[in-house]
Amino acid sequence: MGGDYAPGEVVAGVVAAVREGGLQVGLVGDPEVVGAELSRHDAGGLPIMVVPSDGVIEEGEQAALALRRKPRASILVATGLVKKGMADGCVTMGSTGAAMAAAAVILGLLEGIDRPALGGPVIGLAPRTAVIDVGTNLDCRPAQLLNFAVLGSVFASLFWDIEVPRVALLSVGGEVGKGNRQVREASELFERTLPNFIGNIEANELPMGKTDVAVADGFVGNIVMKLTEGLGAGIAELVAERLKGRLPDDQVDELAREIYEVNNLVEVHGGGPLLGVRGISVVGHGRGKADAVRRAIGTARRSFEGDLAGTQAAQLQKIREAAPESA
Amino acid sequence: MGGDYAPGEVVAGVVAAVREGGLQVGLVGDPEVVGAELSRHDAGGLPIMVVPSDGVIEEGEQAALALRRKPRASILVATGLVKKGMADGCVTMGSTGAAMAAAAVILGLLEGIDRPALGGPVIGLAPRTAVIDVGTNLDCRPAQLLNFAVLGSVFASLFWDIEVPRVALLSVGGEVGKGNRQVREASELFERTLPNFIGNIEANELPMGKTDVAVADGFVGNIVMKLTEGLGAGIAELVAERLKGRLPDDQVDELAREIYEVNNLVEVHGGGPLLGVRGISVVGHGRGKADAVRRAIGTARRSFEGDLAGTQAAQLQKIREAAPESA
Repeated sequence: MGGDYAPGEVVAGVVAAVREGGLQVGLVGDPEVVGAELSRHDAGGLPIMVVPSDGVIEEGEQAALALRRKPRASILVATGLVKKGMADGCVTMGSTGAAMAAAAVILGLLEGIDRPALGGPVIGLAPRTAVIDVGTNLDCRPAQLLNFAVLGSVFASLFWDIEVPRVALLSVGGEVGKGNRQVREASELFERTLPNFIGNIEANELPMGKTDVAVADGFVGNIVMKLTEGLGAGIAELVAERLKGRLPDDQVDELAREIYEVNNLVEVHGGGPLLGVRGISVVGHGRGKADAVRRAIGTARRSFEGDLAGTQAAQLQKIREAAPESA
Repeated sequence: MGGDYAPGEVVAGVVAAVREGGLQVGLVGDPEVVGAELSRHDAGGLPIMVVPSDGVIEEGEQAALALRRKPRASILVATGLVKKGMADGCVTMGSTGAAMAAAAVILGLLEGIDRPALGGPVIGLAPRTAVIDVGTNLDCRPAQLLNFAVLGSVFASLFWDIEVPRVALLSVGGEVGKGNRQVREASELFERTLPNFIGNIEANELPMGKTDVAVADGFVGNIVMKLTEGLGAGIAELVAERLKGRLPDDQVDELAREIYEVNNLVEVHGGGPLLGVRGISVVGHGRGKADAVRRAIGTARRSFEGDLAGTQAAQLQKIREAAPESA
C-alpha cells in the first residue's frame, strides 16, 4: 500500500515477478483495493494471495508513533509474516522509516547494530560500488562505520560474487589520516581490524568504481545519493536541450533517459535490503514503478537464498572478536 | 610558483589579466624561472614586476611546519605584500593549506573565525549557489555554520549583486529539524538569528539553484564539490561514447567539454577568495590553466573593490549581536 504509485504499479510488478516463476507472493493491503487492482491483470492462476491489512504509514509520519497507532498497517503485517516464517522476505515501496521501525521492532536487530542500515549501489557509473549507509544512521560512531564495512562487504559478496570485497572510507583526502574526526578515528579502527580495507576514497573517485564498498555515515551517504540523482536529472536535461534538432528525437530521448537512469539507480532498479536486521526486508524507492517492484522482489529473493541475515550475523561476530573494544 | 602548471600557465594568465588594463601584478617566485617564462611573452611594456621568493610549499606539506621551514616561500612573500599594503590581494594556484595558513598567520582572521573558509559556486547547473565551506573546516560547531552563512551571504551579495541572499542548510530532509545533530542544532540557531534563512535544502535540489547560499561543514561541502567533479567527468565520457559516429567529432567534443566544465567550475573558472580573513587571498584550482589564473585575478580584484574583508567583518559583528550566545 506504500509508495507513490501504490497499489497499481506494485501489483503490476508483483504479477511480473510471479510470472517469472519459482515465487509465491502475498500482497498485503486493503483487500478490496488490491483485489480490484489484481483483477486488471490476467492473474487468476498465479500464486498470489491477498493478505488483509488496515491502514498505511505514510512517508514523513513519525514511525515509532505510527507503529503504535496503526498496528494493522500493511508494513507491520508484511514484516510480521517474515517474523512468523510465513514469508521469506518482505518488500515495500513505502516509507523507509516505517520499514526500518517495523524491521527493528518485529524482526529485531543483529548483535551490535543500533538501527537498520541501508546501502547499495547509488552511482550508476560505478554499479558495483556499494555506498553504506545512505540515510538511516545520521550520527555514527567509528564502531558503527566498522559495522557498515562488514554489512557492505556481505552485500557485495552476496550480490556481486566478490570473495573479499575492497572496503574504503569516504573522506576528503586520499591519505589515511585525512578527514574529519569521525573518519580519522574510523581509519585507525579499520586499519587495525579490516584486512580488506584499502584506505580512503575521495568523492570524485566514487564514479570510477575504485572500491566495492564505500563507507560513510548516513548523512554523508544520503547526500552522495541525492546529489547524484539531482545532477543526473539536470545533466540529462542539459544534454537533451543541446542535442534537440541535431539528432532524431527518439535518440535524444534515449540518451537523456540513460543519463537520468544511470544516476537514479534506486528509483529505476528497485531497492535494497535493510541491513543489520534478523530477516529480509527490502525497501524500494517511493517513485519506483512496476519494473522497480519486480527487481526489488528479485533482491529479496536473492537476499533470502544467499542467507543475507545469517551471513551478516556471522561476519559481525568475527569483527567483534577482532575489535572487541569497539563494540 | 604553486599549482600543477606553474609557472608557465600562471605567467600566461597574469599577462592576459594585465593586458585587460587597470591592474599591476607582482609575480612572486624564483626570479630566474619567472623571468624566463615572462620573456616568452611580449610583456616588455606591461606593469608586471617580479618579486623574488625562495621555495614553494607543495600540496600535501604540513602547512604550519612548512611556514616555519620556508619563511621565504612564494605564498608567504605574496601574502606579506598584502599585509604590508603593497598589494591589494594575492592569488595562488598552489596548496590551499599553505594559502590558508599564510592568510591566518600573516593577515589574521576576522573576529569569531577559527580558520579561513572557502566557498563559492561548485555546481555549474546552479552557478549562483555558493556552497560554503568546501573543505577547510572539517569539524564544525553550529556557530561556525552560522558564520559560514554570513560569509556566504557577503560573497553572494558582492559577486552576484543580491541584496538579501537566501541561505539554506544542506541536510537530508526538507523539513527543519531533519538532519544529523549538527544540522538540527544549526537549524534552530539559524531560525532564531537569520531572517534570510529559508530552511533546509536536500542535495538533489542543489543543482536547481533553490538557494543563493548552501551551508555545510567543510567535510560535506568538499564531498559535494568533488562528487560533482567526478560525476561530470564520468558523464561527459559516457555522452562522448554514445554520440561517437552519430554527430561530427567536434560537436561531440564540444558537448562533452561543456558537461565536464559545468561540473568542474573551480578548475575552469579560477578560484575563490579565502573567507573570514583580514585581507584578500584568492586560491585557484591546482589544475587551473592560464584562463583560470586570469579569472582568479579578476576575483581578487572584485573582492578588493567590493571591500570583501570589511563587509564580512561588519556582518559578522551584526550576527554576534543577534546571537551573542553562539559566538
